[in-house]
Amino acid sequence: MSKRGFNNKNHKFKYNDNNRDNKYKNAKKLLNMSHNKKRGQILKGNKKEERAIKVIPLGGLNEVGKNMMALEYDDEIIVIDAGLSFPEDEMLGVDIVIPDITYLVENFDKVKGIFITHGHEDHIGALPYVLKKLNVPVYGSRLALGLVQVKLKEHKINNAKLITAGKGDVFKTKHFKVEYIKNNHSIPDAYSLAIHTDQGIIYHTGDFKIDLTPVDGQVMDLHRITELSTKGILLMMADSTNAERPGTTVSEKNVGVGIDELFNRAGESRIFVATFASNVHRLQQILDTAKKFDRKVAVSGRSMVNIVHVAKELGFLEFNDEDFIDLVDIDNYEDKNLVIITTGSQGEPMSALARMATSEHKLVDIKEGDLVIISANPIPGNEKLISKVINFLVEKGANVVSSAIADIHVSGHAYQDELKLLQILARPKYFMPVHGEYRMLKKHKELAVETGANPDNVFIIENGDVFEINKHSAKVNGKVHSGNILVDGLGVGDVGNIVLRDRKHLSQDGLMTVVVTISSDTGDILSGPDIISRGFVYVRESEYLIDGAKKIVRDIIDECGKRDIKEWSYLKNTIKDELKQYLYQRTKRNPMILPIIMEVSL
Amino acid sequence: MSKRGFNNKNHKFKYNDNNRDNKYKNAKKLLNMSHNKKRGQILKGNKKEERAIKVIPLGGLNEVGKNMMALEYDDEIIVIDAGLSFPEDEMLGVDIVIPDITYLVENFDKVKGIFITHGHEDHIGALPYVLKKLNVPVYGSRLALGLVQVKLKEHKINNAKLITAGKGDVFKTKHFKVEYIKNNHSIPDAYSLAIHTDQGIIYHTGDFKIDLTPVDGQVMDLHRITELSTKGILLMMADSTNAERPGTTVSEKNVGVGIDELFNRAGESRIFVATFASNVHRLQQILDTAKKFDRKVAVSGRSMVNIVHVAKELGFLEFNDEDFIDLVDIDNYEDKNLVIITTGSQGEPMSALARMATSEHKLVDIKEGDLVIISANPIPGNEKLISKVINFLVEKGANVVSSAIADIHVSGHAYQDELKLLQILARPKYFMPVHGEYRMLKKHKELAVETGANPDNVFIIENGDVFEINKHSAKVNGKVHSGNILVDGLGVGDVGNIVLRDRKHLSQDGLMTVVVTISSDTGDILSGPDIISRGFVYVRESEYLIDGAKKIVRDIIDECGKRDIKEWSYLKNTIKDELKQYLYQRTKRNPMILPIIMEVSL
Repeated sequence: MSKRGFNNKNHKFKYNDNNRDNKYKNAKKLLNMSHNKKRGQILKGNKKEERAIKVIPLGGLNEVGKNMMALEYDDEIIVIDAGLSFPEDEMLGVDIVIPDITYLVENFDKVKGIFITHGHEDHIGALPYVLKKLNVPVYGSRLALGLVQVKLKEHKINNAKLITAGKGDVFKTKHFKVEYIKNNHSIPDAYSLAIHTDQGIIYHTGDFKIDLTPVDGQVMDLHRITELSTKGILLMMADSTNAERPGTTVSEKNVGVGIDELFNRAGESRIFVATFASNVHRLQQILDTAKKFDRKVAVSGRSMVNIVHVAKELGFLEFNDEDFIDLVDIDNYEDKNLVIITTGSQGEPMSALARMATSEHKLVDIKEGDLVIISANPIPGNEKLISKVINFLVEKGANVVSSAIADIHVSGHAYQDELKLLQILARPKYFMPVHGEYRMLKKHKELAVETGANPDNVFIIENGDVFEINKHSAKVNGKVHSGNILVDGLGVGDVGNIVLRDRKHLSQDGLMTVVVTISSDTGDILSGPDIISRGFVYVRESEYLIDGAKKIVRDIIDECGKRDIKEWSYLKNTIKDELKQYLYQRTKRNPMILPIIMEVSL
Repeated sequence: MSKRGFNNKNHKFKYNDNNRDNKYKNAKKLLNMSHNKKRGQILKGNKKEERAIKVIPLGGLNEVGKNMMALEYDDEIIVIDAGLSFPEDEMLGVDIVIPDITYLVENFDKVKGIFITHGHEDHIGALPYVLKKLNVPVYGSRLALGLVQVKLKEHKINNAKLITAGKGDVFKTKHFKVEYIKNNHSIPDAYSLAIHTDQGIIYHTGDFKIDLTPVDGQVMDLHRITELSTKGILLMMADSTNAERPGTTVSEKNVGVGIDELFNRAGESRIFVATFASNVHRLQQILDTAKKFDRKVAVSGRSMVNIVHVAKELGFLEFNDEDFIDLVDIDNYEDKNLVIITTGSQGEPMSALARMATSEHKLVDIKEGDLVIISANPIPGNEKLISKVINFLVEKGANVVSSAIADIHVSGHAYQDELKLLQILARPKYFMPVHGEYRMLKKHKELAVETGANPDNVFIIENGDVFEINKHSAKVNGKVHSGNILVDGLGVGDVGNIVLRDRKHLSQDGLMTVVVTISSDTGDILSGPDIISRGFVYVRESEYLIDGAKKIVRDIIDECGKRDIKEWSYLKNTIKDELKQYLYQRTKRNPMILPIIMEVSL
């Protein structure tokens, strides 16, 4: 472990309540004492009190995805999460999107560690890329780090410093004490973080819901939150994903009931269940139900196989090996004794379920009577893909049950009443809604105000904003570099606006390349013009169009020859402009035009 | 009017019930008589009875869109609707999709007319293209034809034969009598069709719902359907769009109540309402509410302006001109006296609402406090676009109310209980679910069977299938040419799979063009290789990559020169293969590679 890392054993300890109580009593006194001081005023001998913590979101605000939050205090930075997001429609050809961490790289010496709240892609997906530039310690729960390990292996990163965190664990740096607080979410082993500083407590919910009857029996630690609240929470940052949904989420346990009913009605049919691989509690419920109905379980899809392996190894998934069978062996069992758990609940065209539905899967084909349970909601943008897969499944004679018609999915993000409850329990001085698009953040602010928060103390900020906070005041003060880094193949950040603009242009109307070889001595055409088009028109049916284009190019070159013009850039631009006009008039299309002039000196 | 058209006055008449009754009594007798005959058997002197009507869907099955159904009997074809659909995501650069009408063009002489059920794009949008190839009479309601006229004007078609149809109107050809039956839908003046033949009645619902309290007071003509049923409906084809939704649709009138409530709560704010332009009843309700609350109405968006104009002219929209103001004048009115009706309810990036939300609209900008009512549901695939627009609106301080949170939209397509009711009222011998994706058709079949239909008499068929039916039997017998014709700019059908595949390829990884001029005598390189890439990598940052590529090309050409290889196709393929491998290894991307070899003889 590097000099900069901390030793796991030394700084990880369970909180001692006595110490804490005293400390917070003192903090409270200071808080009261300081009320008469002017904001920003620095008093001699009391300097520490007037400093501010910088809260800098590098991702996750005005978006659902690529969550990353930096907290900077004095000479230290700690980072919460390092997630990816999936490309928007207009990001053609892009694989994933990660946060721009220029600010962290520039302040490399300050960065003390990355604290992962849970193992979802939008919280850990950028880690391999971040660690390549910034090999700092990574803290996280056993399951989260198990999933991180799979990623790091794929990226051939084997020098990462991973430190396991569990309920109540606290990690200390000079200025920060980071406490892991159990919460509920759609992946087990998920945590909120309380960051203790001498300015007060910063409480970050992570992704959460309040599940009163969770599958693992461990309800979100509301007691601890209430304790912190009693001591005074300076700033709360809370998950806004479902701020627009009234009421409360349904317990994950209800999904078990819904699945049980479907299994009960399935009769002699094979059962397929498509769900998010990371929802291990749901997998557990499916496994339990399969056992109850005497069905063997096979697993399909790379991420599903990975998760089942990791979760079993870490003890988050309990099953007997004999209850599992290999996908290749399913034909040795009767239909009524089979459950196939698969990826593809979002209709992804390359997923196992989509391939089964279109007979492109090597081992499994959907047949008449199969029951297919889609235990997931569409992530916005995936509705049509899912609909397509369902059509294929139904055409093959499968009975498809989706969350629209049965209670087989619940959200992992708190609804309005849970968010309000949290406001009331936590009673933070300042509040910052995070993890959501603008309208979710805005709604979350309204919810907080409804429960009594002072609207002036609720801050909706943007990625890159520097939010300065101390026990007296809070304000946005400055901006750091932030943004989207697009990952395409091996390229990280080399696909920018120009490349995307060109891809967009090419995708709409294709291109026309015009090549001509010209004598540099005489200006005469030695070869060409040749025209190659792709994605524009079907060339064999458009000879007249191409011939017309060639004539235009020849005429331009002849004209330039006559006028003794040898600036190729002028020539190229003229060709571009005239061809553009010519093609648009005849086709109402605007292909990209690439004129290339080759010069030969004879 | 051409020889082939019929004279409006001669063939358009209201049904004489006496004639009809006798006729159907006879038909019933024939039906009973023929039960002992073998299917397909042709008896002398009774030939007519054994002939079959061909029902040929050219669009609208296994899809929601481009509705077109041909009915062929002996030497006649009539066509129901001629709609367009919007391109799927993978149809890059395509503007609209229309049905392939090769079969109709090949049987041009038979085609007696196109019968439009209502004025929605997916029922009239292909008409200009169809009429250019097949100038047959077009029948439709006043509003539908009013909207058709707008289209034809844009396409500069002025020789179309348009014949207005209304409730109870019947149009006769030799074999068909086409009767217009009033129904309810999300556009006024919408109809079902009963096609009377000597084989029996074919009833096509068109797009419908059963609105018991419609805005115009005219409930779907259930009496007439029941009458037809009493006489015996041979085949029913019915709208399947909402076959998966339980219960019944809500009346359009309820939307009026929801809008009234929002206007009531709007206070001093400006009100924007985004909705489908063609929902004239909704526009009427908005206008009425505006008047009630003393607000002037301005209209934004080309299609909205068009519809308001056409609908007013035809009497479907009632308002005083002084209640309308020009969009350019809105600043002369107080906010509390304004309603702006706009397009953009689907989040279309170029729509009026989207431009207002992003300050790109010339006349209107959204400001703090504006109330924006989105009176529409997302059409599948548009969810993210709409969400984006809402985020922009909320960021500008607007209060956005969507159909998710208020009763401000209802569907125009019957839900399950309406579909079942129709089954029971119509009691057709054969049933064919139409207008829907496969799973909707399948569900619709199940609903029919639930109400007592014989599953063997319910046919789910595909576009292009030839469904033969007569009073004795029904079966799919053969297939005609059908499919998607893609319209891109002025090109109709010239964008096919190859062009789309290239656009897809270009959109993902861009392209690399390699040009080299070679001496045809010596095989030496005279100029180049030059490399131009677009949409692949940002070239300035990738010089090393381009230099490496050039070296590979030079080496290949040198090697070919040495081995005296002058087949340029071999050379090109070698360049393509080796560059592909080289680039993939270094970038994990696969740009399109276009090697161009220019030959010069010195």
